[in-house]
Amino acid sequence: MRALLYDGQLKLVSDYPRPSPAPGEALLRVKLAGICNTDLEITRGYLGFHGVLGHEFVGLVEECAEPRLLGQRVVGEINCYCGVCPTCLEGRPTHCPERTTLGIAGRHGAMAEYCLLPLRNLHRVPDNVSDGQAVFVEPLAAALEILEQVHVLPTQRVVVLGDGKLGLLVAQVLRLTGCDLLAVGRHADKLALLKPLGIATRLATEISDTQADVVVDCSGHPDGFALARGIVKPRGTLVLKSTFFGQNEVNMTSIVVDEVSIVGSRCGPFAPALRLLASQLVDVESLIAATYPLGEALAAFERARSRGSLKVLLRP
Amino acid sequence: MRALLYDGQLKLVSDYPRPSPAPGEALLRVKLAGICNTDLEITRGYLGFHGVLGHEFVGLVEECAEPRLLGQRVVGEINCYCGVCPTCLEGRPTHCPERTTLGIAGRHGAMAEYCLLPLRNLHRVPDNVSDGQAVFVEPLAAALEILEQVHVLPTQRVVVLGDGKLGLLVAQVLRLTGCDLLAVGRHADKLALLKPLGIATRLATEISDTQADVVVDCSGHPDGFALARGIVKPRGTLVLKSTFFGQNEVNMTSIVVDEVSIVGSRCGPFAPALRLLASQLVDVESLIAATYPLGEALAAFERARSRGSLKVLLRP
Repeated sequence: MRALLYDGQLKLVSDYPRPSPAPGEALLRVKLAGICNTDLEITRGYLGFHGVLGHEFVGLVEECAEPRLLGQRVVGEINCYCGVCPTCLEGRPTHCPERTTLGIAGRHGAMAEYCLLPLRNLHRVPDNVSDGQAVFVEPLAAALEILEQVHVLPTQRVVVLGDGKLGLLVAQVLRLTGCDLLAVGRHADKLALLKPLGIATRLATEISDTQADVVVDCSGHPDGFALARGIVKPRGTLVLKSTFFGQNEVNMTSIVVDEVSIVGSRCGPFAPALRLLASQLVDVESLIAATYPLGEALAAFERARSRGSLKVLLRP
Repeated sequence: MRALLYDGQLKLVSDYPRPSPAPGEALLRVKLAGICNTDLEITRGYLGFHGVLGHEFVGLVEECAEPRLLGQRVVGEINCYCGVCPTCLEGRPTHCPERTTLGIAGRHGAMAEYCLLPLRNLHRVPDNVSDGQAVFVEPLAAALEILEQVHVLPTQRVVVLGDGKLGLLVAQVLRLTGCDLLAVGRHADKLALLKPLGIATRLATEISDTQADVVVDCSGHPDGFALARGIVKPRGTLVLKSTFFGQNEVNMTSIVVDEVSIVGSRCGPFAPALRLLASQLVDVESLIAATYPLGEALAAFERARSRGSLKVLLRP
């Protein structure tokens, strides 16, 4: 099959072996896959992953032991867990120390004609959710993870830092709480996408007077932490959604004195993400910059890497 | 009056002017004051405070506009706030940007014959709470602040790092939740104080296999953060109670990937601290190392600075 591989170099191969499902797994025919910033970071060496890239996708169940699933259109949770260790049994399977992660760690991804996932990771896509919407379920779930972790009150002032793909999704999800929301970024054209939704926006250079109860850093940049820290009120919460290389210098005493909470936030729940899409409470299709055939994946990555690019999709 | 001053040097003066209460304030005759690690840090330049030291105390109301308070035995919240700014009106008076703090910032402290506090900061001490217990209300309230900020479940594994005065109080407070508690420190003799209370203890060198849902860093040392970070489970909470000079190097990406929460925690509520003392649910008197007359305050500070010292009290 055709597949987009990273083995120190990004390469499109046409004769990659089609994978065979292990017991409990399904073979999925990929309909659409999304390029995420994590994919771009992997191609810079992040996590040391070598293999087929891709963890955002929608596909069809082609082969599996459950006849009722065959032919179904599905999305899939990307963390594959053992289910028997203390971490899994305590209800944190996405943190299973034995986990593999689709296209990120120990498991080939979805930028190929086919990929594999355990059956228990799959979620059927409702008919009124298009492929172009369903491919956003994974990052939308990551945005919803914030609300799993932090009780955002309708009366709170909330700032989202970063107008990249994830920041724009996070702003849309937080808007649904009724909170007093401000989206902050560096690109007026991307912030403009939030205006039809009634979300207030400001350029990062214009927020010196801003203070917020909750600040979500989706900037994807080490400087984002210092910017977020400067905005968060005493006893406020700073949610970290960005992963990047390197360490941050943090003044822990000021965190104690101001009683700030810092919350790391990663993968989230798929079921509510599908509900939000099915009920049209979020608009993801405006975030699509372009769709490329898988055969033009290298050009698609070039496009995704260009400054300020929105979501680039691949169609196998 | 006699007072213990820090003005770049620690000095006992005998002719310091007795303060006069402003409207809304009470003049308090100090019965007993405690030496806290923050006092020791101030004498190393922390916060740049110059003035009379001391923020842990119990005293008698000597002068104020409320006749019913005269002669009452009281403890006092240490943050003096404006009450009219947005931070105060939003319910966070201890974070008022205009605040002064008894013996720490902008206000003379309690290591003197007399000190001043606003009436609204005072709490009457129940008759069955001794002076030697009441002088612990401020640090005990700081320990309770953890439970104001973090919902510690009875089923969780909790580790307290640090067997100093605050760590021992925090362990006692967390024990009341019914959680599976482990107190970790570097001094077998201090950890032994927790054994009669049924609290499990371990030396810091013996915790490599430990994992916890909640870790409270009371180590008072920059290395405490790394130790705590190594113990906290994915999605766990790391509570910071230590203030110290300098910055910490933090790998923020690992905080995101493991979805750890970091919670800075400072001053806490006095009323529940008094309730715990009145109902004898915590034992503070075993933490008293020595009581010195105020006239021997310099010797008392020497004692408090000695490695592994427990609480040293001053009696004006």
